Amino acid sequence: MNDELAIGVDIGGTKVAAGLVDAEGVILHRTRRDTPDRSSSPRVVEDTITDAVNELLAWADGEGREVEAVGIGAAGFVGADRGTVVFAPHLSWRDEPLRDSLGGRIGRPITVDNDANAAAWAESRFGAARDESHVVMITLGTGIGGALIIENELRRGQFGIAGEFGHMQVVPDGIRCECGNRGCWEQYASGNALVREARGLMTARSPVAQDLLARVHGDPSRLAGPLVTEAAREGDPTARELLAEIGHWLGVGIAGLAAAFDPGIFVIGGGVSAAGELLIEPARESYRRRLPGRGYRPEARIVEAALGPDAGLIGAADLARGGT
Amino acid sequence: MNDELAIGVDIGGTKVAAGLVDAEGVILHRTRRDTPDRSSSPRVVEDTITDAVNELLAWADGEGREVEAVGIGAAGFVGADRGTVVFAPHLSWRDEPLRDSLGGRIGRPITVDNDANAAAWAESRFGAARDESHVVMITLGTGIGGALIIENELRRGQFGIAGEFGHMQVVPDGIRCECGNRGCWEQYASGNALVREARGLMTARSPVAQDLLARVHGDPSRLAGPLVTEAAREGDPTARELLAEIGHWLGVGIAGLAAAFDPGIFVIGGGVSAAGELLIEPARESYRRRLPGRGYRPEARIVEAALGPDAGLIGAADLARGGT
Repeated sequence: MNDELAIGVDIGGTKVAAGLVDAEGVILHRTRRDTPDRSSSPRVVEDTITDAVNELLAWADGEGREVEAVGIGAAGFVGADRGTVVFAPHLSWRDEPLRDSLGGRIGRPITVDNDANAAAWAESRFGAARDESHVVMITLGTGIGGALIIENELRRGQFGIAGEFGHMQVVPDGIRCECGNRGCWEQYASGNALVREARGLMTARSPVAQDLLARVHGDPSRLAGPLVTEAAREGDPTARELLAEIGHWLGVGIAGLAAAFDPGIFVIGGGVSAAGELLIEPARESYRRRLPGRGYRPEARIVEAALGPDAGLIGAADLARGGT
Repeated sequence: MNDELAIGVDIGGTKVAAGLVDAEGVILHRTRRDTPDRSSSPRVVEDTITDAVNELLAWADGEGREVEAVGIGAAGFVGADRGTVVFAPHLSWRDEPLRDSLGGRIGRPITVDNDANAAAWAESRFGAARDESHVVMITLGTGIGGALIIENELRRGQFGIAGEFGHMQVVPDGIRCECGNRGCWEQYASGNALVREARGLMTARSPVAQDLLARVHGDPSRLAGPLVTEAAREGDPTARELLAEIGHWLGVGIAGLAAAFDPGIFVIGGGVSAAGELLIEPARESYRRRLPGRGYRPEARIVEAALGPDAGLIGAADLARGGT
């Protein structure tokens, strides 16, 4: 067995999480930094990554362990070369040659991948989709990210940017999306959608929003997704309805993806997936109602991700070892 | 070079087309039969196929040519074993073990595939998508069929039924589809949609439908898709608008598929694609307007299929030779 370690780095909108990961996907040591804000130069982000990686290298060295490679997962379009971040909205990056820029400073082989690809890889190697060869990963955060594993390999597309499910149109002339279009799936089935709908009820002073309003002391702007999930868990019917509505739209999109890809499993990850069955059962129901050929075909399962917020860094590390 | 031939058989809703195909995708000899109607037993359909294949085998024999394999493309769900037709709406088949049933009668190795898979394979080997590794094929007939080639291989999904793009929902609570759902893509961007919309205008006695009405001597029920295309080619503005509307919806769906798969090329085949640029240019426009990340990413091309109605049988034959 390979007892060398790999470092995984997950660059999110608010934090950079990094960890030392073994060949079984176990995190032996971890660290984190705040993500530099949007206006920072790429150099500042690179400094942050290098700093976190160096801390982990020093720790491994102290334990007498070798680190063979560094994998980075970033929210954004990563080029088919797996070294360049073509476009990262949260970092204001464009055509940033991240692998080359970091290469000289870290002294280990580096691979760069989309964060959802990294999470999907982790779930398929060590998590909810073990033993599955055809996997669709859907990460529900502020938006919707995604990734495809077909015949046991990540499929990144011709230009490296497959899996942008969040911007498939589900409602003609629907809600405006920051991508510039209208009616994108992520306007209906993401954390942002959940918060928007909850705030709408609160702002309208709907009596059904009283429980939620009390939780934010009457200030809708203080509402965040996890609070809705908490209220739903504690039995607030409005919070449950809001999650069920997100779940409904999740199922609509999943039915379409099932028609197109025919996977064996859908893995639902990202922050919103913490709502578990309160989200996923309504998704299953709406999916089953829409699946083409239902009754004449086997049906893919829809399950919650198993690795939680660690999936990105575990997957990035494993991909750096040579996963594909 | 391999100078053996393969037989390709394309089982469509109205006809069974079969041909002797060489290793370059050239059809040396062909024949056809009417498709037995829906109420016929599977045995009758098998007789029809066997009869056509035997005619071609006799011809090859007369020319002193060997036939190494027989490939069959059928409209319907084909199982991952590539031998069983799980569900074929036009033939009333369910779990029909076509390969085994035919095997004893034909005496050649047989493979069965979905007709859109066969067409996609032909276009990628010999047609519009040569030199492309990531191909989405969309066949516009009465409905919408499709197929995926990712990294040079057909990807059929976990259960063998990927590519059913026509039943992705594009309009919530939209037009009822024969699959049992509402708002399926093929209700907006297929030959059936074209005819339905044209007939709607005619039945409403809209003055803009006069040219079309004249072509069917006042009887909307006699209208078929090719007639709309003919009128559009001859300059009828209403027919052009109808095709542009189909093209618009085609582009909407293509943008979603581009977000999900990130292919290098979309190939538009099937009967409706005979409208060429009258259909495809509006599709490109609507696609470009919706493509997520436009301006920050390379864009897939959208082109008309090159092999026309022969794509299915050419592809089925080539797949029987061992294409994947």
